[in-house]
Amino acid sequence: MTPRVRVQNFGVSLDGIGAGEEQTLERPFGHVDPGELMGWAFETASFPGRTEPGGSRGLEDHLTRAFSLGIGAEIMGRHKFGPQRGPWTDDGWIGWWGEEPPFRTPVVVLTHHEREPLTVGATTFHFLDAGPEQALERALELAAGKDVRIGGGVTTVREFLDADLVDEMHVAISPIEYVHGLRLWERPEELADRFHLERIAAPSGVEHCFFWRR
Amino acid sequence: MTPRVRVQNFGVSLDGIGAGEEQTLERPFGHVDPGELMGWAFETASFPGRTEPGGSRGLEDHLTRAFSLGIGAEIMGRHKFGPQRGPWTDDGWIGWWGEEPPFRTPVVVLTHHEREPLTVGATTFHFLDAGPEQALERALELAAGKDVRIGGGVTTVREFLDADLVDEMHVAISPIEYVHGLRLWERPEELADRFHLERIAAPSGVEHCFFWRR
Repeated sequence: MTPRVRVQNFGVSLDGIGAGEEQTLERPFGHVDPGELMGWAFETASFPGRTEPGGSRGLEDHLTRAFSLGIGAEIMGRHKFGPQRGPWTDDGWIGWWGEEPPFRTPVVVLTHHEREPLTVGATTFHFLDAGPEQALERALELAAGKDVRIGGGVTTVREFLDADLVDEMHVAISPIEYVHGLRLWERPEELADRFHLERIAAPSGVEHCFFWRR
Repeated sequence: MTPRVRVQNFGVSLDGIGAGEEQTLERPFGHVDPGELMGWAFETASFPGRTEPGGSRGLEDHLTRAFSLGIGAEIMGRHKFGPQRGPWTDDGWIGWWGEEPPFRTPVVVLTHHEREPLTVGATTFHFLDAGPEQALERALELAAGKDVRIGGGVTTVREFLDADLVDEMHVAISPIEYVHGLRLWERPEELADRFHLERIAAPSGVEHCFFWRR
């Protein structure tokens, strides 16, 4: 099977906003509360960050189960990795996730400032100054035949959509509006010329949008 | 994690019927057409029996992806394995699935007539004369720490539900009525005292019911 390029469990508001503009160390999503966009996932038994037993086993659990299924590498933007800007300093930053990040595969971090790879738990971050095509080439190598997840943030997902490099995408629309912020789309239908689009309403109030190439 | 006992992708009609009563070699589901109950799954990219490329990647694909995910063994009734009744004869029967059955794990076949294990492709069938508790104990051994799927048919799923041995269940209700046949339930709500129940309508016309223990 040809490896696929997938976006998984990506959360946006009704007005298409996936993160705020002013990211800080304290607020990785800026003025946006990630609990509002990702609360549906936190409730599921298979959420990668879950530390307690329990959690739901319905539709949304099938979606968080799919987060890692068949994935061999992730590509993320630098701002998903950390709040720093400009050249890296030796500040001991290991990402937002503590000592066991949920990826557990190689991760390509897009940055204009390359540096040596960093291994944290079962995840190794590779820092690459590259456009989407070249980054994908590297991620496919690292994924060794498995699929590649485009992990975000919004700007990175948009960049891969604009380069037409995404095969499959799951976006969860939460019932909230932000007006300002980093916007994935005006409406999901914008992508319907290139993708099949299926929309499913979940009891959580979230609408799950599934896209796959026509 | 404690291994779970799961029913996955089990198809029934609006009136709860999962198979006909008169099984023959030509009609494994008796008067019921499996295409009517399982057509939603056949359309997905991840359906285990798919031989052609293509297929949908929406909600229902996430459900067929989950068929094998984390599963280490299946338990099935004898009638799911074949149409024979009574003592086994040396007829060369290897199950309904040809030379590469979709299970690819050990499978415990419940039968009053024990025989030596049979390996077909990546699947080994173990024939066991046992009640549900003892069969589950054997399947958990064979699953080596992974989950056990209760694969059906209807009678076998009922038997494990009645013994309260099922942790999680996904049943797909197709928009058709049969009136006669092997019945899983009158209504899904019958199980709501023991299980959380989530019902999701898919564009295919199928309603997906997810159950997990309270």
